Amino acid sequence: MLKGNAIIGQSGGPTSVINSSLCGVIQACAKYPEAIEKIYGMRYGIEGFMQEMLIDLGAERAEIVEGLKSTPSSALGSCRHKLQDADFPVVLELFKKYNIRYYFLIGGNDTMDTIHRIEKYCREQGYDLIGVGIPKTVDNDLFATDHTPGFGSAARYVALSVMQAGMLARDMKKVDQFVVFQTVGRSAGWLPAAAACAKRSEDDAPHIILVPERPFDTDKFLAEAKEAYEKYGWVSVVCGEGVCFADGTPISATSVNDRFGNKEFGAMGGTSAAMVLHQLLSKTFGWRGEFQVTESLQMSGADRAMPNDIEEAYACGARAVELAVEGTSGVMVTIQRESNSPYTWSLGTAPLKEVALGEKPMPDEFICEDRSFVTEACLEYLRPLVGELPTYVRFEG
Amino acid sequence: MLKGNAIIGQSGGPTSVINSSLCGVIQACAKYPEAIEKIYGMRYGIEGFMQEMLIDLGAERAEIVEGLKSTPSSALGSCRHKLQDADFPVVLELFKKYNIRYYFLIGGNDTMDTIHRIEKYCREQGYDLIGVGIPKTVDNDLFATDHTPGFGSAARYVALSVMQAGMLARDMKKVDQFVVFQTVGRSAGWLPAAAACAKRSEDDAPHIILVPERPFDTDKFLAEAKEAYEKYGWVSVVCGEGVCFADGTPISATSVNDRFGNKEFGAMGGTSAAMVLHQLLSKTFGWRGEFQVTESLQMSGADRAMPNDIEEAYACGARAVELAVEGTSGVMVTIQRESNSPYTWSLGTAPLKEVALGEKPMPDEFICEDRSFVTEACLEYLRPLVGELPTYVRFEG
Repeated sequence: MLKGNAIIGQSGGPTSVINSSLCGVIQACAKYPEAIEKIYGMRYGIEGFMQEMLIDLGAERAEIVEGLKSTPSSALGSCRHKLQDADFPVVLELFKKYNIRYYFLIGGNDTMDTIHRIEKYCREQGYDLIGVGIPKTVDNDLFATDHTPGFGSAARYVALSVMQAGMLARDMKKVDQFVVFQTVGRSAGWLPAAAACAKRSEDDAPHIILVPERPFDTDKFLAEAKEAYEKYGWVSVVCGEGVCFADGTPISATSVNDRFGNKEFGAMGGTSAAMVLHQLLSKTFGWRGEFQVTESLQMSGADRAMPNDIEEAYACGARAVELAVEGTSGVMVTIQRESNSPYTWSLGTAPLKEVALGEKPMPDEFICEDRSFVTEACLEYLRPLVGELPTYVRFEG
Repeated sequence: MLKGNAIIGQSGGPTSVINSSLCGVIQACAKYPEAIEKIYGMRYGIEGFMQEMLIDLGAERAEIVEGLKSTPSSALGSCRHKLQDADFPVVLELFKKYNIRYYFLIGGNDTMDTIHRIEKYCREQGYDLIGVGIPKTVDNDLFATDHTPGFGSAARYVALSVMQAGMLARDMKKVDQFVVFQTVGRSAGWLPAAAACAKRSEDDAPHIILVPERPFDTDKFLAEAKEAYEKYGWVSVVCGEGVCFADGTPISATSVNDRFGNKEFGAMGGTSAAMVLHQLLSKTFGWRGEFQVTESLQMSGADRAMPNDIEEAYACGARAVELAVEGTSGVMVTIQRESNSPYTWSLGTAPLKEVALGEKPMPDEFICEDRSFVTEACLEYLRPLVGELPTYVRFEG
């Protein structure tokens, strides 16, 4: 059994439950004193680590570690650093300096790649190291796992938001005719899809769901919006931030007012997909409406976190440590769905190289063929993750 | 005692608790069968009413009426109709047709004006009518009342959001340098002010609060942003949607890129104050950041509603009915704060003409003189309304 110190880092965008994974790792490490002596944390992920920004997690008070389960965002700080060739020797030197033998990163597909490459490099350099990845992302786009910790809570945030704003949009339809809600998640439509859970009756929000897996078709969108307006008197649109035209250009890069020919404004980050859709609907139909860009609020809305999500995130962290002290290296912990009703799950593993970098899109059977919405199969997948939504009343008379 | 039917309408923008006021009215009406026979609801406020869109609220099931307490938005539908001279006879004819003797509207300052003018007109025409207003608005800008039903819940939504996004912005400061959160509320800064409750430590969000009561000064804002960045490495800005330059132009009407000279784009509703500030910070400092425009989500986030807000909203509705059957007309129900610690309150009244149309700004003593923030006096006012915020942990090492 490899004996030494452990280090844990959080990487990429946070979620409402990534700290629960961190808690799982810290508390599990304490159970294996014969293998793990100290547990360090990387401040600001690998970027901070390379500047020797470490924290002794064993010295933190137990209440603080426990409090991680209900604290959003990344308590260690995070980064989005892409490893350069020059980084590897720096990392190895620090591993040697701090006698790091167990290496954990909590993150998405880029992070799994980071662990993979570092673990490989250390082995090639003759340094014994065990590296295990703990999944994380609101985007739900990691391969090999049924879903990712962080997704369920963000999905719930989206579903609640679309549901509530939909109530308001319907009640205010004599004043405003549409609402557009934008989700995070560049390439995958899992979060926009989650909004579908909000719909109980045909006229409920959302009416149109735009996912990045399908090219945006302006005419189709306008036709669907017009149809919804004619049926219901108002329109609810949910749009992933990464939705693109067929040629791959993000719709967020559009300047609706073509007179300017100014691509700089659109691409500066000062526009967004929801705003472009807002302008399109306003200009085409003369409607009034609003766009809602909540951004990282979806990733940190911890009061809306799903208890299951918190539990699974914790379990992934704890399992990573178990695997590591058993000698398993080069894997990511995965979640397997055992049953849907009731919802039960178990943990597995996948080799890091299978999950590194790849972005898992929504399968075709989850996306409607004929209209901008998701299928019942998709809803069955989503419901246990999003959880029960509140019951709101409507008058019957 | 006047005997006849009652009618209730919801007017203007909804809140998370306006249906609780409606519930209070409906359930109270049932207690006075000797005065109130039927209770009607106006569909889509006065606008729907004039099209004879009524609903018999007495025929609704008790569970639905009770469920209003936890249902956001305006179950009757709402409108923003400004009464025209030609409307008054139409309204009176319908009052006569349906034998309406008790008239309740739940709304803000425009709504109080509506009740006032209709009640006055009916009296002048010799028609006995009792009209009572029930306060409502997330903006908190009604005179004569300590605060308005709907404000506390929206304020909590704002404080939670700024707190959570602030955690994330700090943890991600190596990647993004700022976050801008925009609140609703055109003329008053009560909602941006509420964000201040999120701050526990000096470096916590928010760092800058921009309220419409103070003119926006670009140089001052940039200096404050630079100072916060130098101290903390990131910046959290909260901005009311109605913030203006000293000349009264809304900052949301700005096109940062003046080459266009295009005021149309800015004023179309396709930009927002937060976006303008985002562009200003990006262009001036080269920072990356995000803007968050949640709009009506602040007004419908019922899972974040304050229990006290729900209770007060209900009580205002019930009291309006009590007052009406006692013969009191031409008033709005008001909330009086009896004590702060513990927080206790009672109900009063104010003549409609005192509250009609006026927008109550934040008092000077609530706004800091030297910097873009709010005072301790303001926080003392806000805390009971926003409620206890969650405890999030930070590492001490």
